[in-house]
Parts: sequence; C-alpha cells; structure tokens
Amino acid sequence: MNEDRRARVHAQVRSLGLDALIVTHQANLRYLTGLNASAGALIVGVDASVLVVDFRYAAASQALAESEPGLTVDVADGAVDLALVDALRRMAVRRVGVEGEHVTVGRFNRLSSALAAPGLRPIAPEAPAPALVTTERVVERMRAVKDAAEIGILREAGRRISAVARGARAWVVPGRTEQAIAAAVDAAMRDAGFERPAFETMVASGPNGALPHARPTRRVVREGDGVLLDFGGVYDGYCVDLTRTLHIGPMPEAFRRLFEAVREAQAAAIAAVRAGVLPAIIDGAARRVLEGYGLGQAFGHGTGHGLGLEVHEEPRVSPQAPAGEPLRAGMVMTIEPGAYVTGIGGVRIEDDVLVTEAGCELLTQVPIEP
Amino acid sequence: MNEDRRARVHAQVRSLGLDALIVTHQANLRYLTGLNASAGALIVGVDASVLVVDFRYAAASQALAESEPGLTVDVADGAVDLALVDALRRMAVRRVGVEGEHVTVGRFNRLSSALAAPGLRPIAPEAPAPALVTTERVVERMRAVKDAAEIGILREAGRRISAVARGARAWVVPGRTEQAIAAAVDAAMRDAGFERPAFETMVASGPNGALPHARPTRRVVREGDGVLLDFGGVYDGYCVDLTRTLHIGPMPEAFRRLFEAVREAQAAAIAAVRAGVLPAIIDGAARRVLEGYGLGQAFGHGTGHGLGLEVHEEPRVSPQAPAGEPLRAGMVMTIEPGAYVTGIGGVRIEDDVLVTEAGCELLTQVPIEP
Repeated sequence: MNEDRRARVHAQVRSLGLDALIVTHQANLRYLTGLNASAGALIVGVDASVLVVDFRYAAASQALAESEPGLTVDVADGAVDLALVDALRRMAVRRVGVEGEHVTVGRFNRLSSALAAPGLRPIAPEAPAPALVTTERVVERMRAVKDAAEIGILREAGRRISAVARGARAWVVPGRTEQAIAAAVDAAMRDAGFERPAFETMVASGPNGALPHARPTRRVVREGDGVLLDFGGVYDGYCVDLTRTLHIGPMPEAFRRLFEAVREAQAAAIAAVRAGVLPAIIDGAARRVLEGYGLGQAFGHGTGHGLGLEVHEEPRVSPQAPAGEPLRAGMVMTIEPGAYVTGIGGVRIEDDVLVTEAGCELLTQVPIEP
Repeated sequence: MNEDRRARVHAQVRSLGLDALIVTHQANLRYLTGLNASAGALIVGVDASVLVVDFRYAAASQALAESEPGLTVDVADGAVDLALVDALRRMAVRRVGVEGEHVTVGRFNRLSSALAAPGLRPIAPEAPAPALVTTERVVERMRAVKDAAEIGILREAGRRISAVARGARAWVVPGRTEQAIAAAVDAAMRDAGFERPAFETMVASGPNGALPHARPTRRVVREGDGVLLDFGGVYDGYCVDLTRTLHIGPMPEAFRRLFEAVREAQAAAIAAVRAGVLPAIIDGAARRVLEGYGLGQAFGHGTGHGLGLEVHEEPRVSPQAPAGEPLRAGMVMTIEPGAYVTGIGGVRIEDDVLVTEAGCELLTQVPIEP
C-alpha cells in the first residue's frame, strides 16, 4: 500500500549516493509504512526496507509486513538503536543517511560509534566502518504534495472542522472562562469524529488576544471582548487547523479596523495561491495589505504552514521561506495572517487550502464575521 | 525566583570548562527561567544568563527579567538561532555547550557554521571560532530532585488525579466505546483542575489490553472485558500519571492470576524504593515477582519513570538504567509494572511515589481492585 512511496525514497537514496537512509521521524515512518508508532526506525535500502520496532509494535508491524512487499521487520530485544545497528551491519552498508532535522547530536554520535565499533557480527575484517551522513527533508518534501487518498481525507476533515467552527458562537458567551470555551471546542471536535485535537486549542479573549500564542486561561469572557479561537483536529491521521476571531457586544472602531485589515490580508493571500508561486509571494500578499493599514509590525508570524500527518509541515509560508521552491499542486496549507495590538486586541483568520494548477480549493468554509 | 537553579548551572558550566551552555529544551528552559515557551533559548554564561526569544514571548520574558537577577532578554528580529549566535558573539565565548540529547545534527551544524563565519560583529580578528561541544543531562539531572515547592505541587496533583481515578468505575460500563471512556476521563481531569492531559489518555479493553500502548478505539466495552486506563494530568506545569485495570463482569481465573501477579510486583517495587537504591534494583524487584509467575516475557517495558515538568523524565527505572546513579530523596517517579498476554489481556497498575531517605511517600492513593 505504501510501496510506491518507499520506491520513491529508494530512488532518492540511490541518487544521493547512499546505501541506506535511516528514517526515525514518526510522521515520516508512518508515511512510508502505515505504522503509527511513537518509536521505531525504518532503514530504506536501495531496493528493500527494514522496519525496526520494539516489542510494543511487534504484532502491528508483522501484520503490516505481510501486506507490504519489500518490507521486513526486526523486533528489538532491547533498545531500538542497538537492533538498528545490527540490521545495518547485516546489510553491509558503507554510507548511511540520517534525518538531520530529527536525529539529535547525542544519538548521531552513539549510532556512529556503535557502527564503527567491532561488533558481534563484523562484515569483513578489512571493511571500513560505515559513515553516517545527514540528509535534509527527503521524506518531508515528498509528503508536502498529497496524493488522492490524502486529499480525500483532508477534504472530509476540512468539512468537519468547518462544521465545528460554525457552532463556535454558541460557546463564546459572557461569563464563561477561556478554558471552558476551549473544552467545548474540544468536545465538539470529538463529537465531529476527530481522533484528538491537533494541538492545544487556543482561546484568547480581550487583552489576551494580543498574545499570539496564549494558552486558555481562567479569564472570564465579557461584553466588549474580542475572542480568538484557534483549533485543529486529527482525522484519520491528518491535521486541519482553523481560526476565527469573534467579538462580543458593541465593537470599538479600532477593533473593527483590525478585523477588516486581517480579513483583507487573508483574502489577498488566498487569491495569490496557485501552483508555481513562491511561498514568499503569498506571504508578501498578506503582509502588504497589513502594511497598508500601518499594521506591518503587528503581524509577527508567517502567513501559513503545510498540513498533513503533522500540523506544521512543508510548505512554510513566511518571508524567510527558502526561495526557489514554488508551490506544487496537491500541497495543503493554512492561510492565517493576524494582527496583534496591545490595547486593541488580536485578530487572526485562518483557513486551509489545497493548491491547484489554477489557484486553490478552500477546504474550510465558515463565514468570516466578528 | 529561579536564580538558585541558574546559579547551580553556572557552577556546572564552569566545572565543565565551558564559557556558556545553550539550553534549548523547553522543560529545561522553563525550569531555569519560569518561561513557558514553545521556542527560545537560554545562554547560561559563567555568571549571567541571556534569554533569547521571538516576538511572541517578548512581553512575558521582559516581565520575567525584571524579577530575575542576572537574567537579560534578547528579542530576536527573525530566527531565534540568529539572535542566539549574535548574543554568543557579544559574549566572546570560546567553548560552548549544547544539549546533546535535544539539539538535532542539522541545527548543531548550522549553529557551528554561523559561529565560525565572519559575522557582522567579529570579536577580534585573531580570535579562533567558538567551538560547540555536547553536554549530557546537565539540567535534567538537577530537575530529577524536586525542591519543596515542586513537591507541594506534585502532592496536590497526586491527590487530584487520585480523586479522578476513584470515579473511573462509573465510566467503564458495557456499551461505551474506549474513546467515549477516554473523553470522560479527560473531562474529569479538567474538572479536577488539570490544565490538560499529560499524554493521550489510554483506554484498552478486552484484547486491546494486550497491546501495551494502544490508543483508544471505537471498540465497545462489554461484559467479560478487562479495561486498562492509563491517564495523567498537568497541574501547575507538573505531570502526574496513573494506571488502573478494571474488569467488567465475571472474571476468568487467568485474568485474576495476571492481576494478582502485577499487584504483587508493584507492591514489591514500591517496597524497594528508598534513597540510595539503584533504579535497576527497583525494576528487578517487580520483574522477579512476575518471573515467579512465569510472566517475565509478558512484562516488556520498564518499571517506571520520573515525573516533573515532563511526563517522562529522570530517573528511568528499567533493567537498562545506567548503574551508579542511585535514587535520591526528592525524586518523584511512577511505579508501573504490567503483564500483557494475548488471549488473556493486559494488566498494568501504576502509582506515583516521592523518594525519601527511609522509603517513599505514595502521591497517588486509589484502591487496587479489578
């Protein structure tokens, strides 16, 4: 089922001049094997893969291997990394990639030493010790472009999170704490079929709205508050993410202006999305609108991020996004400009889009009203 | 408020022959500054510290710095790591530690290059480039022994999670799904004052009980099922963790035997806890009991783990635990042996203990009945 994905990594491993790539990042492992495990490693060789897991995932992995051609399973007796080194020795590898953004220096050094040490199963007395080298975003780059099955899941997840968001106004009532509102959002996501929240639900009211990543507090929401709700759910393994900012009672002109600026910025960014465009251009479209309102300094984060097995993945839509990697059809990402001003509050509006050749498809559809 | 903790790290930095230590691990950063941030870095110099954060944490950090002697704040214009390198250049450091178990190889390499590159603010033309070296568990080792304030929080958290657990039987009724039971547990934790679950609540019923780290499924619990509930909450930043295994309806003899074996193993491990004892001894006490029942192979995980700002921290109580680091009074940890047998089910019983000179204090108190 995931054989095609592994075949593309096999080809990458070959083109990078490696004998194998060790995949340890959980989402990458799941993408390439279907296994949803909190530990384990996949060795992708030039034409076959070995999944190394501990006893907890032995049964699930062995069941997987039966339906996954070219995948074999090693169950570690003790530490996964020891079994990993054993498997690499058996494969007689010379040059092995590790995921540079996921493997710690400590683990890298331990693996290197273990591979170099004369072990119980030497390859050949004269063989040089295998060398570990770091690779960058090999699997992440593949994951950024979703296949038909993934798009189907994300569309359904988008519909469901939109339905949750349309009910939000009922929970945002004076007298409730931010934490109680967050609990209502979480319960609604569960009722809507989400496995779990994709991240800690954010409810930021009144002055807290100006803190862009505040956790819900015991602050009681009252008349005159802006209330920023940012929440996401995991559906069939895939993440969606949505933000709306509501306002209770009569709205000060300054807050309305902030709201209009962000709404306009979001619309401009969404209008700029299509395959072939650089992420920095999308970010610039939102940023220019906010700068036009004198709110350039009030928008301190990026315009969006990819969605998939992780809630923050490629592409990154920010001014710092690496140039030269234009959007591709099949990418799914958030568009979420915001503006945060002490004394007025914070507004962020976030939707999820699927990049197409002609533009984009909105995966979330919820009225944008304060 | 956290000045004493930083002073102890300053002394460590000195004794390791470093000019500074970069602390990037979130829980370590919080421990040393009080700042609860998802990003940021602390540079601990030999006699002062610099906290580097992005704009999101600027206000909170600056407020902190006012009450924390010896702590200054740098707010990054762009990426935190660029500001970090800038700050290190200003400090004219030569030998800088990084947390080897937390910094990825990719980040380590980028930081090394940035420090070596002729920057905008050279120290002195003839100065050698600063060298990054890895350190191991400098802050983690300090965190393992709790101070009086931390113990107070953990005692209160233990009381509250125990109250939640005592209500569990009411939710474990035939006809409910594992996911619905997990939702009831999560709601009860919130009502009990926990900020959030410390990890995804586990409810494993019937055959799922034999999978030691199963996620709650849509399986409907029925008469004759064993039901394993493992949940934890974060209270004032600190984690507690508790497991009970219940049984619905008439209990097969094989399940009762499993239950008795695990209960006895847990009691043996708890009886072995006191300052000065090696973690492997505690683990062995539980393991020997289960081996006596012929269940050695059925117990595939360690006996426990430390609790604090993280739900898994030092000490590790397992057969592989490094020898030579005996328990110290003030450590807080779980004791959670289990046995998992396909065809019978799984039993795990987990409590949290505070290590004392004479033995231990039970932080969780819930009847142990199937």
